Amino acid sequence: MQTGDRNDAIGVGVIGLGRAFTLMLPTWVQDERVRLVAAVDPRIQACEQFRNDLGGATYDTVGELCTDPAVEAVYIASPHQFHAKQMEIVAAAGKAILVEKPLAITLEECFRIVQIVDTTQVPVIVGHSHSFDGPVLHAATLLSQGRFGDVRMAHALNYTNFLYRPRRPEELDTAQGGGVVFSQAAHQVDTIRILMGGMVESVRAHTGRWDSSRPTEGAYSALLSFQGGAFASLTYNGYGHYNSNELMGHVDEMGYERQTSAFDYTRGALSMVDETSETRLKQARNFGGDDYRREMPASTPHHQHFGHILVSADKADIKLTTKGLDIYQGGSRSFVATPKSSVPRAEVVDELWAVVREGMEPLHGARWARATMEVCFAILESARTGNDIRLRFQVALSRKLCPRPDKGSHSGTKQKKNPGS
Amino acid sequence: MQTGDRNDAIGVGVIGLGRAFTLMLPTWVQDERVRLVAAVDPRIQACEQFRNDLGGATYDTVGELCTDPAVEAVYIASPHQFHAKQMEIVAAAGKAILVEKPLAITLEECFRIVQIVDTTQVPVIVGHSHSFDGPVLHAATLLSQGRFGDVRMAHALNYTNFLYRPRRPEELDTAQGGGVVFSQAAHQVDTIRILMGGMVESVRAHTGRWDSSRPTEGAYSALLSFQGGAFASLTYNGYGHYNSNELMGHVDEMGYERQTSAFDYTRGALSMVDETSETRLKQARNFGGDDYRREMPASTPHHQHFGHILVSADKADIKLTTKGLDIYQGGSRSFVATPKSSVPRAEVVDELWAVVREGMEPLHGARWARATMEVCFAILESARTGNDIRLRFQVALSRKLCPRPDKGSHSGTKQKKNPGS
Ligand SMILES: NC(=O)c1ccc[n+]([C@@H]2O[C@H](COP(=O)([O-])OP(=O)(O)OC[C@H]3O[C@@H](n4cnc5c(N)ncnc54)[C@H](O)[C@@H]3O)[C@@H](O)[C@H]2O)c1
Ligand SMILES: NC(=O)c1ccc[n+]([C@@H]2O[C@H](COP(=O)([O-])OP(=O)(O)OC[C@H]3O[C@@H](n4cnc5c(N)ncnc54)[C@H](O)[C@@H]3O)[C@@H](O)[C@H]2O)c1
Repeated sequence: MQTGDRNDAIGVGVIGLGRAFTLMLPTWVQDERVRLVAAVDPRIQACEQFRNDLGGATYDTVGELCTDPAVEAVYIASPHQFHAKQMEIVAAAGKAILVEKPLAITLEECFRIVQIVDTTQVPVIVGHSHSFDGPVLHAATLLSQGRFGDVRMAHALNYTNFLYRPRRPEELDTAQGGGVVFSQAAHQVDTIRILMGGMVESVRAHTGRWDSSRPTEGAYSALLSFQGGAFASLTYNGYGHYNSNELMGHVDEMGYERQTSAFDYTRGALSMVDETSETRLKQARNFGGDDYRREMPASTPHHQHFGHILVSADKADIKLTTKGLDIYQGGSRSFVATPKSSVPRAEVVDELWAVVREGMEPLHGARWARATMEVCFAILESARTGNDIRLRFQVALSRKLCPRPDKGSHSGTKQKKNPGS
Repeated sequence: MQTGDRNDAIGVGVIGLGRAFTLMLPTWVQDERVRLVAAVDPRIQACEQFRNDLGGATYDTVGELCTDPAVEAVYIASPHQFHAKQMEIVAAAGKAILVEKPLAITLEECFRIVQIVDTTQVPVIVGHSHSFDGPVLHAATLLSQGRFGDVRMAHALNYTNFLYRPRRPEELDTAQGGGVVFSQAAHQVDTIRILMGGMVESVRAHTGRWDSSRPTEGAYSALLSFQGGAFASLTYNGYGHYNSNELMGHVDEMGYERQTSAFDYTRGALSMVDETSETRLKQARNFGGDDYRREMPASTPHHQHFGHILVSADKADIKLTTKGLDIYQGGSRSFVATPKSSVPRAEVVDELWAVVREGMEPLHGARWARATMEVCFAILESARTGNDIRLRFQVALSRKLCPRPDKGSHSGTKQKKNPGS
């Protein structure tokens, strides 16, 4: 399976050149530990741009992509509903997998994936998700070392305009994986599980479906209990009024400072647009689209984030910021910076490298991600039935966390000299 | 029952000259619609100071206080466990009642109180609580008028050092009404009920008891659902690390700007102090205590508050601030100031005046407060049993809310010319 040498950049094949790929592109082209070599996407324009701008090969099918010997690892960034099937094909070809969250859209699919992974023994990482954000891993490391005593509770809040950004039809249909639980709780739950050690015991939740023109979940509040008695409260609202970036120093999810907290899209903006046009609108601003500008602005001093997050341990409360950790004791704050690469989302490549080149267990493996999705499914079920849902397939953090190396170390990010080539 | 004329200041008798009274004192002495005339407290020093500084009579028993013809309304600010019994005596004497939150410490007591109120027909208001804060009533007024469409969800968060302030032994014993659920959820739940219309349907909650030297609830997270499908997430942590005043512009609960968010007392500070000494420590800084300084600093431009509160309706999200309401639509914020009296907590006197002088129904009546306590009891029960608790004794807002008059109106606050005399 490992075709490269221990120090060669990992050859990455991509399935799906849409929004997720567009957001990961700065990472792929700037991090010298990876190089894009191939892609599959039904959109001809995107394939063309991939060949022209990035110099990689494009294929018609996932099966063909997997025969390309330059492809060591496959980044699956297609819509949710394709993840399970495509993982099966890639795993059968023996390639390592980085698959976008959510892992899959039913628990059955998640089980099938775990089985495939067990059988084929291919390395699997589920991400990017915001649980890769530097300050999340940093806080989880300190907490899991017991630095602040027992971890007791967490609180997470995020208010965005998720529901009103241009969407594919599936993204507005819960049965097909639409709504904020599949796409956003997958981030928030994963993050809180990493901070709290992973073992969720029960879930109670309410969801909101408040706009009949976008008939899927646009908001939720969930209460999670953890093994040992800790608990967490998670709240997400994607209806596009309050913008919780104001709690994060007006830095947006991607780590950029914003002059304004006004949303690009809000309720009603897309109400005159039909499904097909809306899908086109979504595609236009992504790779291969008419309005696409490669987003590789000057490096930002900020980590990416997923809203306001507080974790309480016996000896301190920790607030995650876009630069590191605010540690509160007795109301007084001290700040600990989280080392940051100039490459955004370098933490994803850290894990890919550790798994593919160094044979380590993934932190965000298939069982881990199944457990996160079990919580997401429980949020929907609890909201529907009014019951407390007990969880059965949780797993604890599978390996010791270690903070990303500050600089200079062998496995640390090195930025390419000529990114984009 | 009404001994005064329609425009006379209401004569107030006080039961319990401790912390709560100390915090209300600026209101009693500055608001010209009320005057302190009598008090009962087992602490001789406090009674002495009451006579000397405030010129009122003091009595040995509640029964005697109630025979004082100058007493029109009685403010019950004794420890929780005395509220029910003392209300019974006061109601039998036909005096109006303002009783501190929590109404009582068992649902049975709450029922008995409602029965007494029904029988005697005395006016009852339960407060002060932070649901009287100007911005809460202002937001509730706009929301209940349907100004922003259907109300969908709310979120409340408060992190303090509640557990580490000097306490009486009962305050650290849940069975006697100790811990943050009785003393702090009583504020937070009341506030959220007013904003959401009152009718809670179900409660799921977790509580934290994480310091064996203070063996009562120091934290909770609760999920409330409301009639019609709205929901709210409430989180409170009183363990004294993070200080959520930083989300309120560093304005504290009482409306004062603070240079520092460091807490006066934190974990361990009282660990060498025995129960009796700790009770004395609590008393020392209150009325009649050795370290008491009458807290009547220059008027503040800020309303009091109980942490960070967001309410979402279809057409807007509202964030309560210490000066009014931030109203968000599409991420853009507009601000609406909430009129503020120079007398702190004038809203309590507004309601007392409306009820005693104008014969209006209280907003914070006994049934209303019983419903708030039903939610608090459900928080404890849900945390203990792991179940979702259905509520049975909820009541909707009993009268149309109206914002407090801006100025000059007949029933608006007028500050005394010579406060403290
Ligand atoms: N981690 C993140 O920050 C993030 C952000 C956005 C999306 N995502 C995830 O990425 C995935 C894709 O979402 P998106 O928003 O990029 O969607 P998208 O519609 O923008 O992109 C999907 C792309 O996949 C292509 N595609 C469709 N069917 C395909 C198939 N069968 N095989 C190969 N390619 C196919 C489409 O043409 C399109 O280019 C989702 O699972 C989503 O949850 C993650
Ligand atoms: N609304 C608020 O902001 C607020 C703040 C603090 C307390 N409170 C409420 O006020 C009540 C009292 O709490 P506290 O913190 O002031 O307690 P405290 O101990 O500071 O004061 C209680 C006072 O009542 C006196 N007392 C004790 N037993 C009495 C009795 N049987 N009859 C008459 N007086 C008696 C005590 O001597 C003391 O002076 C509680 O119900 C509490 O929840 C409300």
